[in-house]
Amino acid sequence: MTNTTLITNVRTADGARVDVSIAGGRIAAIGPGLAREPGVHIEDGADALLLPGFVEGHTHLDKTNWGLRWYRNEVGPKLTDRIENERRWRAQSGHDAGAQSLALARAFMEAGTTRLRTHVDIDTDAGLRHLEGVLATRHALRDVFDMQIVAFPQSGLLGRPGTDALLDGALAAGADVLGALDPALIDGDPVASLDLTFSLAQRHQKPIDIHLHEPGEVGAFTLGLLLDRVAALGMQGQVVVSHAFCLGALPERERDALLARLADLRVALLTTAPPSVAVPSLKACLEHGVTLFGGNDGIRDTWTPYGSPDMLERAMLIAMRNGLRRDDDLALAFDCVSSVAARACGFEAYGLQAGARADLVLVDADTLAHAIVARPPRKLVVANGRVVARDGALVQ
Amino acid sequence: MTNTTLITNVRTADGARVDVSIAGGRIAAIGPGLAREPGVHIEDGADALLLPGFVEGHTHLDKTNWGLRWYRNEVGPKLTDRIENERRWRAQSGHDAGAQSLALARAFMEAGTTRLRTHVDIDTDAGLRHLEGVLATRHALRDVFDMQIVAFPQSGLLGRPGTDALLDGALAAGADVLGALDPALIDGDPVASLDLTFSLAQRHQKPIDIHLHEPGEVGAFTLGLLLDRVAALGMQGQVVVSHAFCLGALPERERDALLARLADLRVALLTTAPPSVAVPSLKACLEHGVTLFGGNDGIRDTWTPYGSPDMLERAMLIAMRNGLRRDDDLALAFDCVSSVAARACGFEAYGLQAGARADLVLVDADTLAHAIVARPPRKLVVANGRVVARDGALVQ
Ligand SMILES: [Zn+2]
Ligand SMILES: [Zn+2]
Repeated sequence: MTNTTLITNVRTADGARVDVSIAGGRIAAIGPGLAREPGVHIEDGADALLLPGFVEGHTHLDKTNWGLRWYRNEVGPKLTDRIENERRWRAQSGHDAGAQSLALARAFMEAGTTRLRTHVDIDTDAGLRHLEGVLATRHALRDVFDMQIVAFPQSGLLGRPGTDALLDGALAAGADVLGALDPALIDGDPVASLDLTFSLAQRHQKPIDIHLHEPGEVGAFTLGLLLDRVAALGMQGQVVVSHAFCLGALPERERDALLARLADLRVALLTTAPPSVAVPSLKACLEHGVTLFGGNDGIRDTWTPYGSPDMLERAMLIAMRNGLRRDDDLALAFDCVSSVAARACGFEAYGLQAGARADLVLVDADTLAHAIVARPPRKLVVANGRVVARDGALVQ
Repeated sequence: MTNTTLITNVRTADGARVDVSIAGGRIAAIGPGLAREPGVHIEDGADALLLPGFVEGHTHLDKTNWGLRWYRNEVGPKLTDRIENERRWRAQSGHDAGAQSLALARAFMEAGTTRLRTHVDIDTDAGLRHLEGVLATRHALRDVFDMQIVAFPQSGLLGRPGTDALLDGALAAGADVLGALDPALIDGDPVASLDLTFSLAQRHQKPIDIHLHEPGEVGAFTLGLLLDRVAALGMQGQVVVSHAFCLGALPERERDALLARLADLRVALLTTAPPSVAVPSLKACLEHGVTLFGGNDGIRDTWTPYGSPDMLERAMLIAMRNGLRRDDDLALAFDCVSSVAARACGFEAYGLQAGARADLVLVDADTLAHAIVARPPRKLVVANGRVVARDGALVQ
């Protein structure tokens, strides 16, 4: 394999000065003063900080208006307002999930993300059209970008007959994970909704990633039902609960009992760390051994004007939401959008060690905390051993 | 006056296409298709969005490590840990408040801020040294940058004898506003602390801007004492309460009674909208007629790794903290770092109308909400009629 590169003169987050040699898309070696073999392409790291490629744990590539003319948000405050508004807008706008997901995925790469989990709307209006668009994006970027697709019933599972058959089709067509949404407050029947979700997942031998916005005690009730099924069906380590706002608002004793069960059943939590909603505490999760990782949720869509393909910004928001100020605490927030997210989603060969996939980011920053708060343009992004972005712009 | 400029082809936040003519540091006219007088310097706005220069309502220019090697934060969690840590670090680091305040003020200008209120530490260790440094920065930038200085007793007013005499000296030496800090929880005697603060302010005929971090009921108690003094001394419209975290946590009826008194006495509130602390609600303040404006607080200092001289980022954080998503709501968050902040601080001749000081920002964005979430580099910054930054970099 001649496709080899040596990145020289970079610093790791712990301060070590290293070179990184890359061959066949993998890190061949990482350490000080690596030999410069003849014929190897040299990238001068110029004393930049070296980070692993970032991981987006939860977004919605198919919904975004990224790169389009600004969408003016005049939507009402309720969850159902937002769902209906989106369905209406999509019908009238000719929204193209393929083009939009490609535009945003490329923006993620430019900012240093090389692995990503996206939820894709599956409903009785759109059928599998969004999935087809996102699958095309995954195919177009397959050499450099690692994408997991969650088949997501945005309009609910029980309320629109035929949704379960569409999800079944989506899992057969290439979706990696089964999604779900608020079994009590959207579907109105948490037992029936969860039973249908778990049976679909079991039939396809696929993991589950559920949106659980349900607050306080009702969220805790639904979460308890979910955990019962994880235990009964032996799905330990195969379920993610996204948002889990209820864990931010429960009395500490009740919260801790749920965190203990989550740890025991290896159910992971995904947080976007929104500043205006109660959220699971990162420190409490770590104390209980619960895996908490991070993501944007939607980015510039009909739901929200916010979000950014820069996962350093998400690390900053997670750190701010958790009141973290110390450098060692900011590193925990970075873990949420890197190593911990890779582990929670099951992205393989991740990290800055020999044998890992060569997904690397160089930034001009003194330290990791500095990189998080300054979010400088990416000097270099390497994905699967290839340079995909340089000085803040894609090179392919 | 030949020092005239015409900015052509820009869009206002309400969508109007206008030109802006500038003479003598002021906006001479703003409207569609202004005449191109001979000899006038033309700046092609190229369809950019036109915004007024931004206003930073509360920062600490003297404390920042901006531009220095990254400060590693290993500080304990208590307020007193942070105060002691800063005093210790300052003694050992040779921190230069003049150089640091200049570096950060220039970064603010580069990002479009043209008016700023900074609190400056006055204590028995440093005396007036920080004030002298910040006064030098104000003098250096006097032609383009409008700076208000608050004499701030960071180590408390009552605990260190001699602090009141230093504050007295600071107000005589050029500080515009008298600062204060947690009269109950830092000074331990809210009545004596507030009485001393108000008597100092009255002696110098200067307004007050108090840091009130005190939570819940104790904060409400102190705030009540403060409002009593505003009423008794006729200081309506001359007092700002920074942070006022207590208003984020009180029962609604008690909160609303305080908001009504704040409105009645024209006492304004300053928020940084931190995601991890209860804060006054922007919508509740607006409903009660209370002025709420925005700022960073410290930026990259021994207290916090966060903060940015980009006030569009602060607008975004205020909007996110308040759960705002609609375009018209994001405009309210922008008001907090522009017109409302100018009014609250008493910055004069502010805005985008003829006669106002020509403080202008151009950005490539479709709309104001787009500018807030995208925070693109500033294409052009005009301060007091002069171009001070172009394409994201200072020109002087
Ligand atoms: Zn989502
Ligand atoms: Zn402050």
